[in-house]
Amino acid sequence: MGPADQVEGPIVAVDLGGSRIRATIADEGGRLLGRVDRTTPASRGPDAVVDALAKLIWTALAGQPGIDDHDPARVVVAATGPFDPQGTWIDPSNLGPAYHGFPLGRELARRLGRPVLIGLDTHLALLGERRAGVLRGCRDAIYITVSTGVGGAFLVDDRLVVGAHGIAGEIGHLPVAASGPRCGCGGRGHLEALASGPAMAAAATSAARRGRSRPLLERLEARASAGLTGADVTEVAATGDEAATRIVARARTALGRAVTGLVNIVDPTRVVLGGGVVLSDPEPWIDSCRLEVAKGALVTQKAAVEIVAARLGDDAGLIGCLDHDRLGARWSLPDR
Amino acid sequence: MGPADQVEGPIVAVDLGGSRIRATIADEGGRLLGRVDRTTPASRGPDAVVDALAKLIWTALAGQPGIDDHDPARVVVAATGPFDPQGTWIDPSNLGPAYHGFPLGRELARRLGRPVLIGLDTHLALLGERRAGVLRGCRDAIYITVSTGVGGAFLVDDRLVVGAHGIAGEIGHLPVAASGPRCGCGGRGHLEALASGPAMAAAATSAARRGRSRPLLERLEARASAGLTGADVTEVAATGDEAATRIVARARTALGRAVTGLVNIVDPTRVVLGGGVVLSDPEPWIDSCRLEVAKGALVTQKAAVEIVAARLGDDAGLIGCLDHDRLGARWSLPDR
Repeated sequence: MGPADQVEGPIVAVDLGGSRIRATIADEGGRLLGRVDRTTPASRGPDAVVDALAKLIWTALAGQPGIDDHDPARVVVAATGPFDPQGTWIDPSNLGPAYHGFPLGRELARRLGRPVLIGLDTHLALLGERRAGVLRGCRDAIYITVSTGVGGAFLVDDRLVVGAHGIAGEIGHLPVAASGPRCGCGGRGHLEALASGPAMAAAATSAARRGRSRPLLERLEARASAGLTGADVTEVAATGDEAATRIVARARTALGRAVTGLVNIVDPTRVVLGGGVVLSDPEPWIDSCRLEVAKGALVTQKAAVEIVAARLGDDAGLIGCLDHDRLGARWSLPDR
Repeated sequence: MGPADQVEGPIVAVDLGGSRIRATIADEGGRLLGRVDRTTPASRGPDAVVDALAKLIWTALAGQPGIDDHDPARVVVAATGPFDPQGTWIDPSNLGPAYHGFPLGRELARRLGRPVLIGLDTHLALLGERRAGVLRGCRDAIYITVSTGVGGAFLVDDRLVVGAHGIAGEIGHLPVAASGPRCGCGGRGHLEALASGPAMAAAATSAARRGRSRPLLERLEARASAGLTGADVTEVAATGDEAATRIVARARTALGRAVTGLVNIVDPTRVVLGGGVVLSDPEPWIDSCRLEVAKGALVTQKAAVEIVAARLGDDAGLIGCLDHDRLGARWSLPDR
């Protein structure tokens, strides 16, 4: 931690997602007050993102009576990493090379004139579910998010597993097959390359173009340049289309196998599944994980692990910002 | 923990392995005094094993001046699990169904009239390396043993990851391939079914019988009913035999891929490889892990993880017994 005694006051909790930025004031009781949001200008690079963040945070602060330029409010941001402990991006594969080495924490602190702490979105989502969601009272848990990527976080003996460099939990790159589609990181057979929304969409696009599925091809043509999404594939599968069903089943089995391996490793009492891909229709994903764990967990205690859907949705990371002291991250302080 | 204030005195540290039982007295400075050992009568069932353990422990105690029937020496056993926290075996797949439900801790405490604590061999080996081996001063680490099975343990922020039921760390059943030889647990594509000594021996036996390798067939016939071992396969591979080389390479790649996934998840600074299969010739195993981690670790910090061979060999578990208070296990007390 930085000089924590200099850092106090209400928290502006911010979620920096790939498509939206959301900000809110978190009061001491853990309530979120006065949310504001806007699109993320991710394609315009990190400077544009910091501008957008700063403006939105000023808006959030302006909406709060009693908080002004001179008050001690501080800012905690849940964002896609990886980051170093000071909030500088390190090779963020989902954002692109322009973001590598960009000191998000320091830049945001400078522009806001306030202390800023950057946390991993997955770590903060787990902490949010622990504070107010399905992990209340649970001491050993795995949190998994399946959306544009696949990420995770671990709670061991009621402590978030932070890792030596603050970036523990990247389960998307767990190998679950010896071969398969190429992952964004370059590897093969990784969970993320089988189960993420873009992975399902890519497999479906390929199947459509090879003439394996008329409904997928029709959907692809209707989407034009935007291309298919994971939700498209799930919807087409629900109509009984064989190719789409196979792709979705492969994704769910991959997740189930990864969860089984993780359950054997971490020995939790609860596994939480979150992220847009799962939460749009959680039950079949949960069922697949339960089936694989029942087959593959080594002992009865592990097979009894509860597998549940995340409860807080997009708010998990914002609520998790209240437990920023459980991260391995350091405050960036503005120059004064 | 049980009533810890009733449990004190010197520690008899015991290693219950598949082929040998070893016992020693550990003094307060952490030295191991007066080792004794004998074969493990594993095939004769758990009662015979407890008998053998009790006799060997009496022998170890008898060799120590100043320790007799009335002194408060207590016993810590490093053994193949899984166990519940009281030291009762739960489905120990490497030992067989006769061991399921056998209360090793309670039975041993009853026969010895002394407090007994049962710990997982992998957990205690990590604690031993942390106390006196290659993990001294390291706070975030992965320990992996490759021998008859494949097991592991994790150190997170200088704490052993125990798990909700005390049985965290079973990395042998991490899926690394979508298919492959059947694992002892029934699964497919598991690390243990590719990288353990018996897994390599089974693949080599099959290759020999299908006429793929004359040197493997000759070795198999020389072994007669004992069958091949992992060491046989490694030795034949070292002569340039193609089939044996492929089997060994597959095992080492599987380990490297699993290590990479674990590095991405746990974010350690050091990975320790132990167990007979690795320690008979550590360098190629370490090289394979370094290669896979360099290819597959997500960020530079993780790629910089040190991969090293265990230093304490068979003594790691015995030395780890001195840190029994870091396990999730409870003392079994004798009825008095």
